[in-house]
Amino acid sequence: MNKYNDQQIIDSWKINAKPWITAIEKDEIESRVLVTNKAIIDAVVGIKSKSVLDIGCGEGWLVRELEKTGIPSLGIDVIPELVAFAKKEGGGRYKVIAYESLSYEKLKETFDVVVCNFSLLGRESVITLFEKIPFLLNNGGSFIIQTIHPVVGCGDSIYKDGWRGGSWGGFSDKFSNPAPWYFRTIKSWKSLFLSNGFSIDKIVEPLNKETQLPASILFIGIKDRN
Amino acid sequence: MNKYNDQQIIDSWKINAKPWITAIEKDEIESRVLVTNKAIIDAVVGIKSKSVLDIGCGEGWLVRELEKTGIPSLGIDVIPELVAFAKKEGGGRYKVIAYESLSYEKLKETFDVVVCNFSLLGRESVITLFEKIPFLLNNGGSFIIQTIHPVVGCGDSIYKDGWRGGSWGGFSDKFSNPAPWYFRTIKSWKSLFLSNGFSIDKIVEPLNKETQLPASILFIGIKDRN
Repeated sequence: MNKYNDQQIIDSWKINAKPWITAIEKDEIESRVLVTNKAIIDAVVGIKSKSVLDIGCGEGWLVRELEKTGIPSLGIDVIPELVAFAKKEGGGRYKVIAYESLSYEKLKETFDVVVCNFSLLGRESVITLFEKIPFLLNNGGSFIIQTIHPVVGCGDSIYKDGWRGGSWGGFSDKFSNPAPWYFRTIKSWKSLFLSNGFSIDKIVEPLNKETQLPASILFIGIKDRN
Repeated sequence: MNKYNDQQIIDSWKINAKPWITAIEKDEIESRVLVTNKAIIDAVVGIKSKSVLDIGCGEGWLVRELEKTGIPSLGIDVIPELVAFAKKEGGGRYKVIAYESLSYEKLKETFDVVVCNFSLLGRESVITLFEKIPFLLNNGGSFIIQTIHPVVGCGDSIYKDGWRGGSWGGFSDKFSNPAPWYFRTIKSWKSLFLSNGFSIDKIVEPLNKETQLPASILFIGIKDRN
């Protein structure tokens, strides 16, 4: 039996919600400040959408940024402490919903864009989430994922789908109990889109200015018309 | 001695200017219509620039599109027949200038964005052009290149810089005398940016909807501050 599973990711976030809020509010995560925050905002704003669903919104920074540019946004997250913080900050709507419970029936609304910003870290949870996204999108809607770049983030391991042990390297010592994450190759990410009724419009690699290596990868999928 | 050189590219365009104008006006090039036209427009418009220089503008379609979105643009091209057509169509400014003659002294203006849309096909001409771009850009300005994707466009040849024979495959039989082109790896394109005072902000791969392979690659460089 595998020692890692999806539940460990949620358990870790429950423990680390507080230091995470601090890290985001104090801009402690350098790559986010320098590169990836701008990349996800550009990607969403570039689509000229009228509504966004941010899945795994955390403490809500992206929803707040999108609302500032005039795009009504709903953020969902499974960690009550993060959603409570987001609601307190204001700007946008928020709900505590687990990926497993998310559905059109639950939300009773659809969106022009669904975005997952570094929030797809599990195995089964991601597979089942992908199946639900088409029902949450308007016709021609976009599904945008920003995630760890598989090639750059592969490290010394084999370039093959599988669970990897977590680490809070680069974070403050307030973080503990790092979650495992499920590594996917670029081909596997593409397959998730294609097998769930999306075509991929483009792939974006924002580069870290210092290293000139990709700081992340973005997949921008478009829901195929039935 | 190599049988291919930069001059052959210009010679070919002189011969094929007329069918090229027809091909663009009649949307004969499927990949352009489906994917790459939108990709370059999105990239330029995403930067919110106030002025654009389109190097190798051809018959001027991109300049016209940018002017429609309210961005004043100047197109330059070495082929008089293409520039004459562009001027006749109106919308934007145009000049007949060879890459070798291009300079700040020649234009006496600088731009927020310089764009080369499938117009960097040679060897020396591209190297010398890169050296001139920083002088044509405002501080913090962007240099955007869209070109053949090196991995997808490599074919059965070795993945290594070098001249390749040309072909008008996929074009109408009005085209003749195909030009050779100089193949560059992704690493070589990146080196051209880095060695000329740019950092690369991001790399974009627009995907062909049918094949889900990249239809092209875009490099978006930012001029480093001195």
